[in-house]
Amino acid sequence: MSLIKEISTNIRSGHYSAHDIVTHYLNLIQKTNSSIKSVTRILEERALKAAHHIDSLIASGKDPGPLAGVPFGVKDLFDLEGEITTSGSQVFKNKKPASKDAAVIQRLCEAGAIPIATLNMDEFAYGFITDNSYYGITRNPHDTSRFAGGSSGGSAASVAAGILPFSLGSDTNGSIRIPAALCGVWGIRPTYNSMPMQGVYPLSESCDTVGPFCQNITDLKIVCDVMAGTFNSSVNALSSNLKVAQLGGWFERDVNPEILKVIQDIMVLFQSDKKIELQYVEQARIASYLMTASEGGALHLPILRKYPLKYDPDTRDRLIAGAMLPTSSYLQAKKIEQWFKIYINTLFKEYDLLIAPTTGDIAPKIDDPVVTVEGKSVSAYTNIGIYTQSLSLTGCPILSVPITRDGNLPFGLQIMAKPFQEHLLFEVGAMLEQKGIAKASILQQKTTI
Amino acid sequence: MSLIKEISTNIRSGHYSAHDIVTHYLNLIQKTNSSIKSVTRILEERALKAAHHIDSLIASGKDPGPLAGVPFGVKDLFDLEGEITTSGSQVFKNKKPASKDAAVIQRLCEAGAIPIATLNMDEFAYGFITDNSYYGITRNPHDTSRFAGGSSGGSAASVAAGILPFSLGSDTNGSIRIPAALCGVWGIRPTYNSMPMQGVYPLSESCDTVGPFCQNITDLKIVCDVMAGTFNSSVNALSSNLKVAQLGGWFERDVNPEILKVIQDIMVLFQSDKKIELQYVEQARIASYLMTASEGGALHLPILRKYPLKYDPDTRDRLIAGAMLPTSSYLQAKKIEQWFKIYINTLFKEYDLLIAPTTGDIAPKIDDPVVTVEGKSVSAYTNIGIYTQSLSLTGCPILSVPITRDGNLPFGLQIMAKPFQEHLLFEVGAMLEQKGIAKASILQQKTTI
Repeated sequence: MSLIKEISTNIRSGHYSAHDIVTHYLNLIQKTNSSIKSVTRILEERALKAAHHIDSLIASGKDPGPLAGVPFGVKDLFDLEGEITTSGSQVFKNKKPASKDAAVIQRLCEAGAIPIATLNMDEFAYGFITDNSYYGITRNPHDTSRFAGGSSGGSAASVAAGILPFSLGSDTNGSIRIPAALCGVWGIRPTYNSMPMQGVYPLSESCDTVGPFCQNITDLKIVCDVMAGTFNSSVNALSSNLKVAQLGGWFERDVNPEILKVIQDIMVLFQSDKKIELQYVEQARIASYLMTASEGGALHLPILRKYPLKYDPDTRDRLIAGAMLPTSSYLQAKKIEQWFKIYINTLFKEYDLLIAPTTGDIAPKIDDPVVTVEGKSVSAYTNIGIYTQSLSLTGCPILSVPITRDGNLPFGLQIMAKPFQEHLLFEVGAMLEQKGIAKASILQQKTTI
Repeated sequence: MSLIKEISTNIRSGHYSAHDIVTHYLNLIQKTNSSIKSVTRILEERALKAAHHIDSLIASGKDPGPLAGVPFGVKDLFDLEGEITTSGSQVFKNKKPASKDAAVIQRLCEAGAIPIATLNMDEFAYGFITDNSYYGITRNPHDTSRFAGGSSGGSAASVAAGILPFSLGSDTNGSIRIPAALCGVWGIRPTYNSMPMQGVYPLSESCDTVGPFCQNITDLKIVCDVMAGTFNSSVNALSSNLKVAQLGGWFERDVNPEILKVIQDIMVLFQSDKKIELQYVEQARIASYLMTASEGGALHLPILRKYPLKYDPDTRDRLIAGAMLPTSSYLQAKKIEQWFKIYINTLFKEYDLLIAPTTGDIAPKIDDPVVTVEGKSVSAYTNIGIYTQSLSLTGCPILSVPITRDGNLPFGLQIMAKPFQEHLLFEVGAMLEQKGIAKASILQQKTTI
C-alpha cells in the first residue's frame, strides 16, 4: 500500500540499494519527461552522492530514517544547496545558488529522502495551470492534451506519471489541491504556519503553505509528518462518530454531477445529510485574491523595477497591478480574512470535517482552456480556483482526495478540518482509500526495479 | 502624595462625600475651562448620579473600590453610554450615542471612578498639537500662548490645570507622551495590546494604545493597573541594579541642553554612562507614519466618501492620501516594524530601561508653531513627534516623566521598558519623584474642598 515503506524497507533489507532506486527513477524521468514536461532539472550528481551516503549508512548498520533512499522532486521554489531557485522564472535564472536546503528539505533529507529533480510551475507560483512561458506547459499524464493544473503542476504530474515516489509543492490559493485533483494524486494543504517556510520563495505570506503530493494516503502522512517535524509511523484508526458536513451553494454550483455523487456517497458513509451554505464565500475569494495580488506585488516591486522585461508579460502585469493596489483594499481584505476565520471556527464547533469539490470538473483542454462559472464558459486560468481560493483564507488543513474512474479522467475532493487536525484528514483518507472510494491514478506503478 | 488615595480615603471615611468632590470639580471646570479649552462636554447628570451611587454604597457599609468617587475625564474617542463619541470631529456629531462604556471605562467605573467630562483632541487623534477646527485649540495651562500638545491635549491640559484628578488619552505615535511632556504631567503609553480596546475609536490598529494622565506616579500606577485589570495597591521598591542606557544620536540632536542635563543626572543616579545610537530610527519613524496614514485612511475611506465636507480639510487630505498609499509601501512598513521590534528586543537583553527626551523643547507658541529639526525651524504640527514616533513601533511601554522647573515651562522624558514590564517604569518613576527630579506641574493643587 505504501510505496515509501516498500522502497525504504527494500533498501534497509538490502533487497536493492539506494543507488539502484535512484538510478531507476532517473531513467524513468529521462524516458517520460519529454511528453509531460514536469521536470525542469535533474539533480543527478547530488542524488547519486546521497544514495551512496544512504548505502554506506546501511552497510555500517545504521538506520538512515523512515524515508531511507526514497527519491523525490521539488517545485522549483524550494532552496536546494548549490542550486539556483528559479521560482519558475527567467528573472532568477542567474541568481546566486542557494547556500543551504530549505528547512523542510533538510528534514526530509535527515529522514533519508533524496531530492533528484526540480519541477515545473507557474512563474512565481502565480497561476492555477502550469503554463510557463519559459519551461513550457506541463501536460496531464493521463491525457497530454489537457493541463496538469497549477501552480505546482510539475509536482502533481510527476507523481501521477509514476516518475517520482513523492514531490513537494506550495499552496497559496489552491496550488497543491488543484493539480492534485486534476492529475489524480493525493495532496494536502497543511495548516497555515505549521511548517517552516525558510528557503521557500514566497508569493503571499498571508496564505503560503507547503505540502507533499503522494500516491497513497500512508505516504502522504509520512512525508507530511517529517516535514512538520511530528513524525510517527502509524495512521490511526478512524475516530468514531465524526460529524461531517457538505459545503453547498457556491460549492455545488457548476460542479459535474459525478463529483457531487461521490461527495454524496461519502456523506452516506458518515450517515450525514448536513449541507452548509457558507456565507460570504465570494467576499472571501476576493479577499484571498487581493491579499495575494498585494503581497505578491509588494514582494516583486523592487525586482520588477530592475528586470521588467525578464518577467512573463502576464505575470508582470498582474504583479504591477497588485503592487499599485491601495492599502485600504488590502486592509479590508485582511478584515474579511479575520472574520472568515472566526466564522469557520464556529462551524467547527459543530462539525469535524467539511467536504467540497476541489474543481468543478476534470482537467481543462490546453487548446480550449475554459471552465464553467454560473453556467458560462470562462477562462480556466483565473477561474479554476473558484472552490479553493476562499478556503485558503481559513488557515485550516485541507486534503485533496483523488477520485479515479475507469476510462475517464480523475478529479478531486477537498476535506477540511480545524487547524492542526491533520490527523483526522489522514484517518478519513485512509478509510476512503480502504473502501475503494479514493484512489490515486498512477500511470506507471512501480512493481520492481 | 497620591491625590487618588486622598480623595478616595476622604470619601470612604465620610470626611466629604462623592457628591461634594464631583461638585467641586464640576465648578473648577466651569471656572477654568474657557481659558484653556480642554473640556468639550461636561457629564453633569451622569456624574451626580454616579456620585450618589458611591455615597449610597458607603452609607450601606460597602467599599466602592480603590477609585471611590474619584472624578476623571476622557479624550472624546472613548465610548460613554448614552453619549456620542465624536472623536473630535463634526463628522460624528450626529451619530448614534454609544450603547455602553468602553471596556477600560467600565473597569474604572467598577473601581469607583466617575467620568465627568469629555476632552478636546486633534480630529480623529490624527495630530500632535490639539488644534481642532471645531472645538478650538487647547491651550497650555502654564502659558496659554502655547500649545498643550496632542492629540490627547485636552486630557493632559485638564490634569495640569488641576481641574481633573486624572484623565484618559490614546497614544498612536506619541499622543499621550507629547502632551504629558508639554503640560508637565505623568503619562504612559502602555504595552501594545495590554488593554482592551473595545469602545475606543481607532486611528491605526497596529499602533493604537490607551493610557492615563496623572498628577503623580502613584496615581498613574493605580489607574493603569485598574485599566489593565491587574490592580494591586502598592508601588514596589526599586528593583536593584537596573541597567539603564540613554538613547543617543537621533535622540540628542536638536534637544534643549537642559533636557539632556536631566537625562545625564538620571544616568548618574543609575551609575551608567551607556549611550546607544539606535539604528534605522528614521526608517522606523517613516514606517510608523506610513502605517498610521494607511490604516487611518483605510478606516475612514467609506466615511470620507459619504461626508467629505464635514472633515477638517487638513485631516481629510491626509486621510485621502493615506487611503491611496499602495499596499507595497504598507507591507514594507510592516516589515520594518517587525525588524525594529526584534532589534529593540535584543537591546533589552542587555538593558532594563532606555531613556530619551519626549520632545526636543518646551511647548511651541501657537502664533509661531515651529520646532527645530537638524538645526532648522520646521512645522511643529508634523515634527514634534520626532522622538516618539519610532518608539511606538516597538510595542514597548513608555513612561513620560514630567520635569518641572521654577519659572520655566515643563518638559518630559521617555523611559521605555520591555513589553509588560510597566512595573519597572512605575518603580523608577517613584524613585525620580522621591528624589525631586521628576515632578508634575499642576496649576491649582487641590488642598481642600
